[in-house]
Amino acid sequence: MMSVLREQVKTDLQQASTVLEELKAPDAADIVNDLTLDDAAIAILMLPLEDAIAVFNEPRLERRPDLIAVFEPEKAAAILQGLSADERTKIFRHLGAETRQKLLPLLSLETRGELEKLLSYSPNSAAGIMTTEFVRLSPDMTVSTALKHIRSVARHRATIYAAYVLEPDTGRLMGALSLRDLVMAEMTQPISTIMRKYPIAVEALDDREKVARILAKYNLLAVPVLDEQHRVLGFVTVDDALDVLTEEQTEDVQRLGGMQVIEEPYFLTSFWQMVRKRAPWLVALFLGELFTGTAMRHYDAEIEVARLLVFFIPLIISSGGNSGSQSATLVVRSLALGEIRPAQWLRLLLREMRIGLALGVILSPIGLVRALLWGTGWGVASTVALTLVVVVLLGAFIGAALPLVFRRFGFDPAVSSTPFIASLVDVAGIVTYFSIAGWLLGL
Amino acid sequence: MMSVLREQVKTDLQQASTVLEELKAPDAADIVNDLTLDDAAIAILMLPLEDAIAVFNEPRLERRPDLIAVFEPEKAAAILQGLSADERTKIFRHLGAETRQKLLPLLSLETRGELEKLLSYSPNSAAGIMTTEFVRLSPDMTVSTALKHIRSVARHRATIYAAYVLEPDTGRLMGALSLRDLVMAEMTQPISTIMRKYPIAVEALDDREKVARILAKYNLLAVPVLDEQHRVLGFVTVDDALDVLTEEQTEDVQRLGGMQVIEEPYFLTSFWQMVRKRAPWLVALFLGELFTGTAMRHYDAEIEVARLLVFFIPLIISSGGNSGSQSATLVVRSLALGEIRPAQWLRLLLREMRIGLALGVILSPIGLVRALLWGTGWGVASTVALTLVVVVLLGAFIGAALPLVFRRFGFDPAVSSTPFIASLVDVAGIVTYFSIAGWLLGL
Repeated sequence: MMSVLREQVKTDLQQASTVLEELKAPDAADIVNDLTLDDAAIAILMLPLEDAIAVFNEPRLERRPDLIAVFEPEKAAAILQGLSADERTKIFRHLGAETRQKLLPLLSLETRGELEKLLSYSPNSAAGIMTTEFVRLSPDMTVSTALKHIRSVARHRATIYAAYVLEPDTGRLMGALSLRDLVMAEMTQPISTIMRKYPIAVEALDDREKVARILAKYNLLAVPVLDEQHRVLGFVTVDDALDVLTEEQTEDVQRLGGMQVIEEPYFLTSFWQMVRKRAPWLVALFLGELFTGTAMRHYDAEIEVARLLVFFIPLIISSGGNSGSQSATLVVRSLALGEIRPAQWLRLLLREMRIGLALGVILSPIGLVRALLWGTGWGVASTVALTLVVVVLLGAFIGAALPLVFRRFGFDPAVSSTPFIASLVDVAGIVTYFSIAGWLLGL
Repeated sequence: MMSVLREQVKTDLQQASTVLEELKAPDAADIVNDLTLDDAAIAILMLPLEDAIAVFNEPRLERRPDLIAVFEPEKAAAILQGLSADERTKIFRHLGAETRQKLLPLLSLETRGELEKLLSYSPNSAAGIMTTEFVRLSPDMTVSTALKHIRSVARHRATIYAAYVLEPDTGRLMGALSLRDLVMAEMTQPISTIMRKYPIAVEALDDREKVARILAKYNLLAVPVLDEQHRVLGFVTVDDALDVLTEEQTEDVQRLGGMQVIEEPYFLTSFWQMVRKRAPWLVALFLGELFTGTAMRHYDAEIEVARLLVFFIPLIISSGGNSGSQSATLVVRSLALGEIRPAQWLRLLLREMRIGLALGVILSPIGLVRALLWGTGWGVASTVALTLVVVVLLGAFIGAALPLVFRRFGFDPAVSSTPFIASLVDVAGIVTYFSIAGWLLGL
């Protein structure tokens, strides 16, 4: 059904607005995403302004800054004016200086002031992702006055996430009220008696991932964002939390996979952007891996005597890398979910070493038998077997330790990616292997 | 502050209930998680029943099935009876047959019937995670009757996520209403005129991840779950979506890291469970990696002539593995987010190959220079350089293709883990390397 519509819009752009108008905004956004930039711009421009705004308000609509730059300035400003504050800010962050200069004077004074304030916050902070259209109540209102007030201000919003009760003089947060609280109460009660006092709140500069986890932890639909004077600046909703967690998870996965973070969807990231995000890590890992050659050259004499040893090198170093990959994955994820406290780090390391030992002991006999079947003799075979135990243990240790070290020094633990750990273990594995060979074979 | 409370509860269990009662349920759950199983059970039992239920209703409370099994059956049943239907079902799924038999007769007939129905659905389906306490309205009610009805049924629920309008005879879904819709409407309007017709809904057997993505896509607070006759069975909330996405993401990361999924938090997973989840993948990868030895033995004669070649093996195969890891990570994540449609698979593969080629061309000169500096001569050096281009390209191709193959055959693409791809590329890389060596060096 969606694919039929997709084709219809593509083949007949004239019909596009009729089709898109019928759809829910996220579905319309999906279809527009499929068009070329020019066609997408035309399709959106043919929509009634209200619908164009609804589609533009969808975070899933791709290329929003590019579209804004393509529109006539007046049209662009009209759309921006209609967006919710958080989406408007998100789009503005990606506009070029020139486009910004052209559009800012076309926005209302109020919108402009708000936008400039929001842009001053980091996009990774609570204030950087908040929206500002909350309902302000004062404590002496009755329930019925509050409901009347809500009815008068909440024209277009699909959901009323939050109504906050503010101290009349200072604007400080006194309490929070949900629609449910109001509906369940007696009409004549003053809201100060039914509001939730000391509601959970976050600070303007709190990290956005922390904010998302708080929304998830306390099952909140929205959380107020406060300034240093405890005044409400805006709020972050559970929808935002879903988007933030998905983005943060994507970043973690990409870092774990050994590359820099790619923000745009796959096909919207240009060829050279892709190369620029991937090449630096690949080169860095390559430079690290050069030490495997250095190490092997160091053992040139041993290799000359026991050439059979080299057949096991990929096997041994990859086993260490795989074991390290498992540990790192578990530790990085547990840190991200807040499952591990610093007080537990030592216990974690000791445990991973015990697990690594057990895993090494499981792999070891397979390696031993394979070597014997290849006719290497007991010397090389037991070198392989013993090295496997040590290297798998080493992998588990490095895989667990490195994310903790990164976290300790304030870096993202996910930077200790699978390939990064594999490189470290490769070099360490080769040294271990030939050391054990020297000892067991008397080289 | 939390750590002070944590210590206080640990040292004086008598005080525990006073401390825990003061806290919000998720914070109380965090503190109980830190106690031994016996202490946790005592702490919860000392709470008034209502508070015990609130803490037990928190998904973040760990060991819930174990605690239920420790409690007196009557107490356990009283707590279970008070939980929301989805949490009750989640806990019951993990109870032993014996405990289930003991507890079921102690639950009310209604709760028991509902529980048995919910248990019959897969825990990965929409119906398996839904809750059932929604507000049922009939289309001929006026707004004021509907509000009165909601006030009478919504006693304890913190949030009224969903009110559904059902066909009086059949129970089929006619429309959905939010509290906002009711508050904004005139009191005397019949709700059939203000309800949202054809609201977005999911089917009972839809995958839970799909349900979570629908909630996120359409910014919904709740989505109704329908049976085949279009009757409302229950609903899934945005909180559930947050939990589901976090769990699914953890599973993907663990699979990508090369292990089976570990459901419990790190320290709650026993030593042997850990080993059991990790050893099978490690052994499978080891068996695959054995082919590197087979391949190298095949080129024994070449190695004897040009022993310098072996120093570059770890470097070459790890570069292929790293390139594959990057591709696989991008593709797996894009598939999970629904960014790539099957129609785009070919384009994706061709693109990854071009990117792989570019990355290989970047690494190649570094390898060439390093080899020349080691004094290998131009023969080995150009072998290394050319192999790097081919292997990095190969890695990118395999890394992109494998997740697509898994998806095509109905498996989770994340199973094509970083270590798995590295193993494949290792073997292919060695064959490529020695083939090129044979050609360039005339071996």
